[in-house]
Amino acid sequence: MTPRLGIVGAGQLARMMYEASLPLGVVPRILAAAPGESAALVAAGVTVGSPDSLDELSAFAGACDVVTFDHELVDPAHLEALERDGHVLRPGAAAKRFGQDKAHQRRALGEMGMPVPPWGPVATAGDVGGFADRHGWPVVLKAARGGYDGRGVWVVDGPAATGQVLAEAARRGLSLIAEAHMDLERELAVLVARRPAGDAVAYPVIETVQVDGILREALVPAAISPALEHAARTIGLELAATIGSTGVLAVELFLTGDGDLLVNELALRPHNSGHLSIEGCLTSQFENHVRGVLDLPLGSPAPAAPAAACVNVLGGDVESPESRLPRALAVEGAAVHLYGKPWRPRRKLGHVTAVGAERSEARERARQAAAALGAAVTAEAMA
Amino acid sequence: MTPRLGIVGAGQLARMMYEASLPLGVVPRILAAAPGESAALVAAGVTVGSPDSLDELSAFAGACDVVTFDHELVDPAHLEALERDGHVLRPGAAAKRFGQDKAHQRRALGEMGMPVPPWGPVATAGDVGGFADRHGWPVVLKAARGGYDGRGVWVVDGPAATGQVLAEAARRGLSLIAEAHMDLERELAVLVARRPAGDAVAYPVIETVQVDGILREALVPAAISPALEHAARTIGLELAATIGSTGVLAVELFLTGDGDLLVNELALRPHNSGHLSIEGCLTSQFENHVRGVLDLPLGSPAPAAPAAACVNVLGGDVESPESRLPRALAVEGAAVHLYGKPWRPRRKLGHVTAVGAERSEARERARQAAAALGAAVTAEAMA
Repeated sequence: MTPRLGIVGAGQLARMMYEASLPLGVVPRILAAAPGESAALVAAGVTVGSPDSLDELSAFAGACDVVTFDHELVDPAHLEALERDGHVLRPGAAAKRFGQDKAHQRRALGEMGMPVPPWGPVATAGDVGGFADRHGWPVVLKAARGGYDGRGVWVVDGPAATGQVLAEAARRGLSLIAEAHMDLERELAVLVARRPAGDAVAYPVIETVQVDGILREALVPAAISPALEHAARTIGLELAATIGSTGVLAVELFLTGDGDLLVNELALRPHNSGHLSIEGCLTSQFENHVRGVLDLPLGSPAPAAPAAACVNVLGGDVESPESRLPRALAVEGAAVHLYGKPWRPRRKLGHVTAVGAERSEARERARQAAAALGAAVTAEAMA
Repeated sequence: MTPRLGIVGAGQLARMMYEASLPLGVVPRILAAAPGESAALVAAGVTVGSPDSLDELSAFAGACDVVTFDHELVDPAHLEALERDGHVLRPGAAAKRFGQDKAHQRRALGEMGMPVPPWGPVATAGDVGGFADRHGWPVVLKAARGGYDGRGVWVVDGPAATGQVLAEAARRGLSLIAEAHMDLERELAVLVARRPAGDAVAYPVIETVQVDGILREALVPAAISPALEHAARTIGLELAATIGSTGVLAVELFLTGDGDLLVNELALRPHNSGHLSIEGCLTSQFENHVRGVLDLPLGSPAPAAPAAACVNVLGGDVESPESRLPRALAVEGAAVHLYGKPWRPRRKLGHVTAVGAERSEARERARQAAAALGAAVTAEAMA
């Protein structure tokens, strides 16, 4: 029989994993923090429980053969405890930590010889000042744990701003790292799906457009040379093997003005940059995540069309994109994905993907449909 | 808000409608006869109740804005009663009857001037004998209601076989029609998705391979001339408009040895022949069924690849295709769909679709994966 798959977390990533699982005859169980969460609204088997409670995690894992994750938020110590008790986590606790703890990740990436922006742990204004002396202002300060979608990231241009961030970090109990602010040519992402035994496939490199730390658009092919495409995929495959990831590893990369690729961020799960793989690739990142964590043969990540573009639907002026669904579906070739989440400004409520012969054409269609849904669209994203 | 969609019936068609609905933010409720049915295993909102009970149908419809159907089995009188009570059925009772009552369908198609095989209602051995005098033996006898997948269809070669079928029909309370046995060149299907106001799209014509009345393979493009492709789509669009279908209308067609197209069968729902549209067309039949019944703009039915092939996974010697999933997923380019149904010989347990540059290549891959799943494969289907 098919292994019983459990997903900790019930956001849109869990929902899309659920959607991708059903054709395989796999019906994941969902551990949701609340019954109204995105994946909990659609799944047949939902357990409401806290991902912060080791007892509740243990009970959930006990009803599953394999446990995977929608997010990075489970305490790494809980993950280690679950593994000690014999539960099968995919990715495992050690791999997952690369997406949970930036200081650990940066240190380990450096030891692997992976290219990363200059960085260092910082605790005091003196630490940040010293870092700025070496790398210049502005400095990027990041919470070592718990940040996402621009939360937990601050760009500080001098001692005054630094003091404010340090005060906030102290209040919230966050430890910080500092990174050099890079002159970026483009932001890229490479996704790798991997099985426990080591088989792995790399998706086409995705170009991302971020505004205020939130992904707004994702595009394939990336506007980079074949050599850079190859280099980025190689980084992804090497990282997946070294970390021992299972399922999808998402590697966010900076392409600097000097033409260097630097590893910016890792996520040990399907990633917003890869949503376009649902329509744009022969096998979606969600299906390959499920295949990978269940140790099933991986599907081809090859493009299903010459180009694909994905535009996020962030909460804008309109409360409900659902009510505007007819307008979006009237845009020919737009594949609409809504997550069933209550509206909040800037919240990720859905996305639209379009495929086509040309990247610009696909992007235009996806933007039209996202705008029809009332998505917040900024000048930066439209630039 | 999105209308509340209810699906009566919980087979694999309902399951695939459910899968296609979720990205649209639509979470259908399911009326299942039993909790272990295919769609009931995956849906968040399942009501267990009998589709034979008007009370249970009414209660279910009362919790929905729009009701659609997985099958043809609801009593037409119940459908009419639901409509009289103000429930919105899509397709409506009058349209649905074309898929439920063969005598009604044949009579109405004749009145529309649609090409159909010679037919007539028969009650006695004398009726059948008279029909054979006009059209020759063998004669095809069909139950006017309730037949599918070869059940309720008998090919009789003379009076003795006729007597056996008439006795069985009397025992089961079936009324029959007789049809001339056609010399077939090919079997085809054309699917049309339609909105209540009349917008409609026709899918590429699908060639089907049937064995013992059960669909085994579906292929696009059909190996027919552009003129026949156009004629078949025109028949589909005209029928959908005349019947007033909403959602998917599936028209099964005979292409005779003389090159004539004849309407063989209608289904007012997604159809096995169209499963290849999930990977093979820009919008699947399931998504367009949901869009149509919710009166949302229809998606493009255009091919997503030059060719696609779907092979059914019927229960064979192996009890569980699930246990053989790894072998099937190892076939590159095979999209596996399992329905979660308990094994029975010849039961439809799943299907595999492959797309490709050539029909023969797609067919070969789909067959390999279906065989890997332990599907019953017959010499006829492999011919």
